[in-house]
Amino acid sequence: MSSKFVIGVDVGGTTVKMGYFDLEGNVIDKWEIPTRTEDNGANIIPDIAGSILVKMKQEGIDMKEVAGVGIGVPGPVTDDGTVLVAVNLGWGKCNPNKELGDLLGVPVKTANDANVAALGEMWRGGGQGYKDMVAVTLGTGVGGGVIINGQVIAGSNGAGGEIGHIHLDDEETEACGCKGHGCLEQYASATGIVRIGKKKLADSSKDSILRKDGDLTAKDIWDAVKEDDELAKEIAEIYGQYLGKGLAAVASVVNPEVFVIGGGVSKAGKVVIDYMKPYFDKYVFPGAKNAKFLLATLGNDAGIYGAAKLVLG
Amino acid sequence: MSSKFVIGVDVGGTTVKMGYFDLEGNVIDKWEIPTRTEDNGANIIPDIAGSILVKMKQEGIDMKEVAGVGIGVPGPVTDDGTVLVAVNLGWGKCNPNKELGDLLGVPVKTANDANVAALGEMWRGGGQGYKDMVAVTLGTGVGGGVIINGQVIAGSNGAGGEIGHIHLDDEETEACGCKGHGCLEQYASATGIVRIGKKKLADSSKDSILRKDGDLTAKDIWDAVKEDDELAKEIAEIYGQYLGKGLAAVASVVNPEVFVIGGGVSKAGKVVIDYMKPYFDKYVFPGAKNAKFLLATLGNDAGIYGAAKLVLG
Repeated sequence: MSSKFVIGVDVGGTTVKMGYFDLEGNVIDKWEIPTRTEDNGANIIPDIAGSILVKMKQEGIDMKEVAGVGIGVPGPVTDDGTVLVAVNLGWGKCNPNKELGDLLGVPVKTANDANVAALGEMWRGGGQGYKDMVAVTLGTGVGGGVIINGQVIAGSNGAGGEIGHIHLDDEETEACGCKGHGCLEQYASATGIVRIGKKKLADSSKDSILRKDGDLTAKDIWDAVKEDDELAKEIAEIYGQYLGKGLAAVASVVNPEVFVIGGGVSKAGKVVIDYMKPYFDKYVFPGAKNAKFLLATLGNDAGIYGAAKLVLG
Repeated sequence: MSSKFVIGVDVGGTTVKMGYFDLEGNVIDKWEIPTRTEDNGANIIPDIAGSILVKMKQEGIDMKEVAGVGIGVPGPVTDDGTVLVAVNLGWGKCNPNKELGDLLGVPVKTANDANVAALGEMWRGGGQGYKDMVAVTLGTGVGGGVIINGQVIAGSNGAGGEIGHIHLDDEETEACGCKGHGCLEQYASATGIVRIGKKKLADSSKDSILRKDGDLTAKDIWDAVKEDDELAKEIAEIYGQYLGKGLAAVASVVNPEVFVIGGGVSKAGKVVIDYMKPYFDKYVFPGAKNAKFLLATLGNDAGIYGAAKLVLG
């Protein structure tokens, strides 16, 4: 019986997203289950196995028709699928390739979730048609996935593509989640732009629609930019400078064809790229200036697409 | 007749270095010819072909015993061997794979000289036994070569590994060779450390053996560091901070197993790594802190070794 399907699994701290696809990457169905993190996440792999087996049964698909299962995990994963640690899942060092593979009887491939999402965007998303690509996720943090010649750079310690922790500012007094000071993530994430915004609001006496009661969000700031609010535009300028400087460093190392920008902040659209691009051009090595900038298109599904693609190589 | 030999060619602005090797990378002989840059370097490829043909004839080797010829060129080269430009040779866009291949009747592979030198250090030099490696050349400029899974990252525009142009300092007023301001190369090259040194000597009133007549060189500074000269150690500290910050950015992108440090400045030895390492540790993403730092061992021969390795894949 020849393979007709491939399954992608994106393990998050709250839910496990799953999808099954034909071999061209067309999604046939997707579903999710809760992530049971108790007991050091001991149930997560069996839960995934059970859910897949039931789903395939319901769909009338024999496991022999499944080429394999790919998994994205929130933590460092080396090339051979060893998860070094996944704090949000309660996992220490483990190898889902073997554990889930034994339960399902099909090949399983595991990789870091940000790297897997990058692969998804390359396969069926904003980066379709490219093979040298850096995916940038501007969310709660700043994640990255570096793909060269169609292959993810996992890194020798599973830390490839951790572009959110490129050091950019010696003057920073607040600590990053990684305990460093002045990381790209401290400025270019959703919380980062809010932090820049609050400082700007405090330091300036300029009038602005951002001066309001309640929480300031990344969306508020970009909405205000689109309404031509001067102070919001100054915030976007600072944001663009940090992001441009960080991505310029990335481009000087791997010289990608394209950056694909995703994550919550990127929902503001092309305006994010517009504010970043002049600074990228200013700080990048001239020979690497050829990089294109595109928006991600798969949203939260990038992980299941990329996990599925992981199996197909 | 089966292949027994492989030839490596390192094309510089003044001389072309060549060597032939057995398939395990043992050098059998090396020689060089002048680089004739006149007429837009039109003679360079025919000169190389002639020199190789004569050499093989003299050694009693049939070209059928040669697996191929690799060439390192000082300029951006894409994955398919297209040289985009090589200013020091007088070359515009060209493809030595075809041109030299036609003259010799064996496969020819071309790549950027810094990337080729990286490959050489991985094959038979300081990086032997590693497959995820970044070579750093601290010479007149700062060059780099990123190797992942044994393969050089050429970059979509031939600018992969241009780590000397990572932007590090917003306050820099002098321009880099690339026309940027504040590039790693402006501090970490041989001219960079002299620049830092001269500034420090001017700004400080401290006594130092570096206060002497004649030109200040990188070697003077490191020699003085080894003699425990306080001012020289302050210069080395600034140097180490810039270099550590730059390499930390590289590690956060590709998380290599090892950095192999070569070039003129590295002749000072492990002291260069010692001054850089604390800053690397401070600025790198914790998950990428595993990188080892080793010294290059092939010196000016790295290029011919790496060019030969290019042929073997």
